[in-house]
Amino acid sequence: VPAPTVGRLPLYHRALAELSARGVATASSTQLAATLGVNPATLRRDLSHLGSLGLRGTGYDVPMLLASVRRALALDREWPIAICGAGHLGLALARSEGFNTGRFRVASLFDVDPDKIGEVFSGRVVRHLDELPDAVAADGIAIGVITTPRNAAQEVADRLSGAGVRALVNFAPVVLTVPTGSRVRQVDLSAELEVLAHYGARRLGHSAARLLESGSYTS
Amino acid sequence: VPAPTVGRLPLYHRALAELSARGVATASSTQLAATLGVNPATLRRDLSHLGSLGLRGTGYDVPMLLASVRRALALDREWPIAICGAGHLGLALARSEGFNTGRFRVASLFDVDPDKIGEVFSGRVVRHLDELPDAVAADGIAIGVITTPRNAAQEVADRLSGAGVRALVNFAPVVLTVPTGSRVRQVDLSAELEVLAHYGARRLGHSAARLLESGSYTS
Repeated sequence: VPAPTVGRLPLYHRALAELSARGVATASSTQLAATLGVNPATLRRDLSHLGSLGLRGTGYDVPMLLASVRRALALDREWPIAICGAGHLGLALARSEGFNTGRFRVASLFDVDPDKIGEVFSGRVVRHLDELPDAVAADGIAIGVITTPRNAAQEVADRLSGAGVRALVNFAPVVLTVPTGSRVRQVDLSAELEVLAHYGARRLGHSAARLLESGSYTS
Repeated sequence: VPAPTVGRLPLYHRALAELSARGVATASSTQLAATLGVNPATLRRDLSHLGSLGLRGTGYDVPMLLASVRRALALDREWPIAICGAGHLGLALARSEGFNTGRFRVASLFDVDPDKIGEVFSGRVVRHLDELPDAVAADGIAIGVITTPRNAAQEVADRLSGAGVRALVNFAPVVLTVPTGSRVRQVDLSAELEVLAHYGARRLGHSAARLLESGSYTS
């Protein structure tokens, strides 16, 4: 399955789960595409990679399509998560809906601060990072989330990789180096803002240009 | 500037700021590309969109390149931020480095819960969402961050749009509808996990297949 398609599967998953919950049995690619804000041709191509073809005149069978998207996303097994860095962001994520939904479950919190170790947050004890290998073995940690300060992120990534965790979500603003075969998803909060700033300024620039332009044509 | 280039500018910004802080005066596109994990040809094309051309044999002038990336990202002005939804995630973001870096500044927190309104978190009072238009006028709020539960997110987006905020970062797991000319960056925590699950399962599948295969060839 091509990477851009994989990137859109979570969106399809959510939309199909909502339709299914509302009891919708079939949906055309045009309807689905409009709900999702994607191009109908892109949607049809993406779904064909999963072996799902809509029927002309009827569209897609919603429950069947949902099942094939869930299968492609491997949501038929549990994915225990370790959050490394029990600061404000780490604790907020540990409680968040997004990180405790469906087959995802925050299993453990880790830190190195002696003041935090042993504290309990929403039912989970903060453990020392040295215990990571044990936790991976005992709980089958599959995904590591890095919410440490930037200067600790690479070491934590190394420790997670060393313990056999091959899937990382990094919230620290650094580019991590990981072993071949590992995957990192970078959630870069300031990058999101910077991209908005680029477009925001351009819009302001355009408005100003339009204002000047209209000024030069009126009166 | 093409959208994929804009998406990479924050990465270039960070890497160049680090080089500049370390006193590095020039860098070749090959060096820069290796640090950033991008293709050197992509990097050169991206930078040419900003009018920055490296010199053969010398490379790029780091301070000049940093200045042109900052200009493209419109980081020469302030971008006050309003966070709507003063729950765990909203408060963690209000304190985060990513949201209080360079020219970005969390100016206000909003909620509708009477128990939260008037509370002070890291020096900011939580205000009622009804006061949003006043805050936009007084503080020049340019970016709205949505950290509400999913069922409140669209209404908050409508209120932000109504108050003239055209740039939104949405952490709620819903696809928002916004007026033409507005931009939404979706930070989808469960989508990040789902993409990792897809690749994680594929990797497990491959390992199992390799194991079986090697088994059939040995002994």
